[in-house]
Amino acid sequence: MASQRQLKLGAMLHGVGTGWDNWKHPDAVTDAGTNFPFYARQIQKAEAGKFDFAFVADSVYITPKSTPHYLNRFEPLTVLSALAAVTSKIGLVGTLTVSYSEPFTVARQFASLDHISGGRAGWNVVTSFLEGTADNYSKDKHLDHDVRYRLADEYLEVTKGLWDSWEDDAFVRDKKAGVFYEPGKLHELNHKGEFFSVKGPLNIARSKQGQPVIFQAGTSEDGRNFAAKHASAIFVGHGNIEDAKLYYQDMKRRAASFGRAPEELLILPGISPIIGVTEEEAERRYQEKLGLVTIENALVALGRPFSYFDFSQYPLDEPFPDLGDIGLNSHKSFTEFIKKEAKEKNLTLRQVALAVATPRSIFTGTPVQVADIVQQWFEAGAADGFIISPENLPTSLEDFVEHVVPILQQRGLFRAEYEHDTLRGHLGLKIPENRYAKETVYG
Amino acid sequence: MASQRQLKLGAMLHGVGTGWDNWKHPDAVTDAGTNFPFYARQIQKAEAGKFDFAFVADSVYITPKSTPHYLNRFEPLTVLSALAAVTSKIGLVGTLTVSYSEPFTVARQFASLDHISGGRAGWNVVTSFLEGTADNYSKDKHLDHDVRYRLADEYLEVTKGLWDSWEDDAFVRDKKAGVFYEPGKLHELNHKGEFFSVKGPLNIARSKQGQPVIFQAGTSEDGRNFAAKHASAIFVGHGNIEDAKLYYQDMKRRAASFGRAPEELLILPGISPIIGVTEEEAERRYQEKLGLVTIENALVALGRPFSYFDFSQYPLDEPFPDLGDIGLNSHKSFTEFIKKEAKEKNLTLRQVALAVATPRSIFTGTPVQVADIVQQWFEAGAADGFIISPENLPTSLEDFVEHVVPILQQRGLFRAEYEHDTLRGHLGLKIPENRYAKETVYG
Repeated sequence: MASQRQLKLGAMLHGVGTGWDNWKHPDAVTDAGTNFPFYARQIQKAEAGKFDFAFVADSVYITPKSTPHYLNRFEPLTVLSALAAVTSKIGLVGTLTVSYSEPFTVARQFASLDHISGGRAGWNVVTSFLEGTADNYSKDKHLDHDVRYRLADEYLEVTKGLWDSWEDDAFVRDKKAGVFYEPGKLHELNHKGEFFSVKGPLNIARSKQGQPVIFQAGTSEDGRNFAAKHASAIFVGHGNIEDAKLYYQDMKRRAASFGRAPEELLILPGISPIIGVTEEEAERRYQEKLGLVTIENALVALGRPFSYFDFSQYPLDEPFPDLGDIGLNSHKSFTEFIKKEAKEKNLTLRQVALAVATPRSIFTGTPVQVADIVQQWFEAGAADGFIISPENLPTSLEDFVEHVVPILQQRGLFRAEYEHDTLRGHLGLKIPENRYAKETVYG
Repeated sequence: MASQRQLKLGAMLHGVGTGWDNWKHPDAVTDAGTNFPFYARQIQKAEAGKFDFAFVADSVYITPKSTPHYLNRFEPLTVLSALAAVTSKIGLVGTLTVSYSEPFTVARQFASLDHISGGRAGWNVVTSFLEGTADNYSKDKHLDHDVRYRLADEYLEVTKGLWDSWEDDAFVRDKKAGVFYEPGKLHELNHKGEFFSVKGPLNIARSKQGQPVIFQAGTSEDGRNFAAKHASAIFVGHGNIEDAKLYYQDMKRRAASFGRAPEELLILPGISPIIGVTEEEAERRYQEKLGLVTIENALVALGRPFSYFDFSQYPLDEPFPDLGDIGLNSHKSFTEFIKKEAKEKNLTLRQVALAVATPRSIFTGTPVQVADIVQQWFEAGAADGFIISPENLPTSLEDFVEHVVPILQQRGLFRAEYEHDTLRGHLGLKIPENRYAKETVYG
């Protein structure tokens, strides 16, 4: 059974739910965004379900129009560090932007989380798409999309270099001889590039898993190449299995072009299953969700990937407006997709807004039906696993763990017990060799 | 008893001990710098001793010559967040530099720690004195001492402003009415200053204690004024009670000049007690510590406050060299003190290096003797409490908690049980009013 290819599962941890009006759901815990016991219960539920990792999303800019979900929530590194202390096996993945941070600090904070958790840290690298973010960080303007990805590439080179500052056997700690470390096994990075100059070394050693695991969500051309080069796991959204298969094949091919094996880059679509004891109950749950959404909030939901563009200025029931360049420097792949779909299908603004705000997940049905779709995607080469993004925490995650996971386990698709205690171990990823140790041995 | 003025006590959490050769001590746990169970046991010991807070120091630049203590250790925000999950009462104070960070991120991470811990966070604001730090952060040069403090002042204005983004009663969370928050109670900061422009609002609410508690270690003229204006607690080092009293009076006077009451700024000298069952045992422990120190390491210890200036180029047994301006842009107050002492007392380089590397703590003796000195300083107006910086963890902290604290409790100088569950509560500090709420009520 262990030799069979195994699904990877992640659990998004949200406060009041991702959907634009989900905080109004009867099950929603409305102060969950800064409620640590709530987060602790959620991750412990995911760990009871033997999930590979929990995932905390992020952004660093809000407006008075932002959804409740974004307005008041924990910062990922701090909450993941605290969650490390109340779990023992599950991976801990957090989002952090490279466009408004310093590689020395970020390399160090993730390395510190990696030590605290005994090798369970992962970093979801984002470049931030909201243009207003610049206003919170003393910048004249948000960097252009292509520049952000050029910067991200250099940033990752620096971070990975800093993580190798200390060779694994550098620390001798010989009290009698008075030798704490072997000087030849400490390395300065001395990076000088277009965006950063960073000398190093980092003031923290490599962890049990070598380096934190890099996650990314690349869908634009620049994003895909970045992910293929640097990431070990991709968090992506798809509307149907055909698109998912094309993306999967494309990314494995791109990874190969960087000299990487297919299993070194895991493709993990994010899904928001709606589960019912019967199909009717699942449908009723979807309708309940629909009933929470107002058209005003749907327009805001639509505006966010365009950096909070104000769609309320257009008539609702006329064809989707021509936006020109708007959105190109924000969440580009998504805004271009929306424009294309609206044009091809001749949709009104109302239709587009509601489709964005209340998508009907393909992963809707009874536990067996949801498990069937999961298995179908996994076996058809559309996914290596999934990141479950439960919309109405706590019940959505509980439903998946209690009702779908046991089916996947019975089918031999998912572990019944943890076999490792690091995130790399769970994901079947190799511990990266220290770049300097390699030089010593082979150079 | 509760009406009597009460001592405040903090515990520095170190990995392998602060002293320059203390990692060689038989009791030292040499991998402690990234050993989370070790940190957890230490803070739980401090919490068992009813300490007000634990304190994690920091720096973001090492060289191959740095002491083991600095080379490989947790980053403060991450480890304090994890420690929040294994404690329930004790405050959590971490050091973070304003010279190489962004106020939006730092305000948010400390606010997040404050929520995770239920209102127990504190931030020790430093400006970084090691000039090499600039090389890790893509900067041409380290900012001058006076500029660093001008920046720090603006940084704190921004941070405190961001912390007030949400009024305490802003979140209505009315599911039926669809109102998550009251728009009039969310505030943009719109700061534009010499160093920063930050729009806000912050994407996290105020905590149970309003804002994290500001700590500082101001000894230079600029540092003292900064602390008097912004800090609620000062971490400072003194060689004798006379200097401590002068400093105490000076700081309370400066606080008053900013319109603050004396009890709003607590003076907490850092001390490293050496405790023995008998005086002889205490003395033996000090001698044991002396025996660990080499003159080579003592020279490095001396060099660090001068930004790792290389003292090995001078003869050991001749008068302390004339250094000119060296050290002025580093740990200025300390380097000027060293130069002055060396000249006035006509000391050799060897004498100065050993005095810096192996000071003999005044707080040395039996538990009753140490408690007597603590009480003397406290009652003479030299201190509002102390930060215990135990040199040979784990035994030094255990000795203080198990043998000195009970004496202080018996004398009615220190709490026998926690009476609050926030750091402000422990320290007797008021919850700061939200600047905007004040406007509404009084404006």
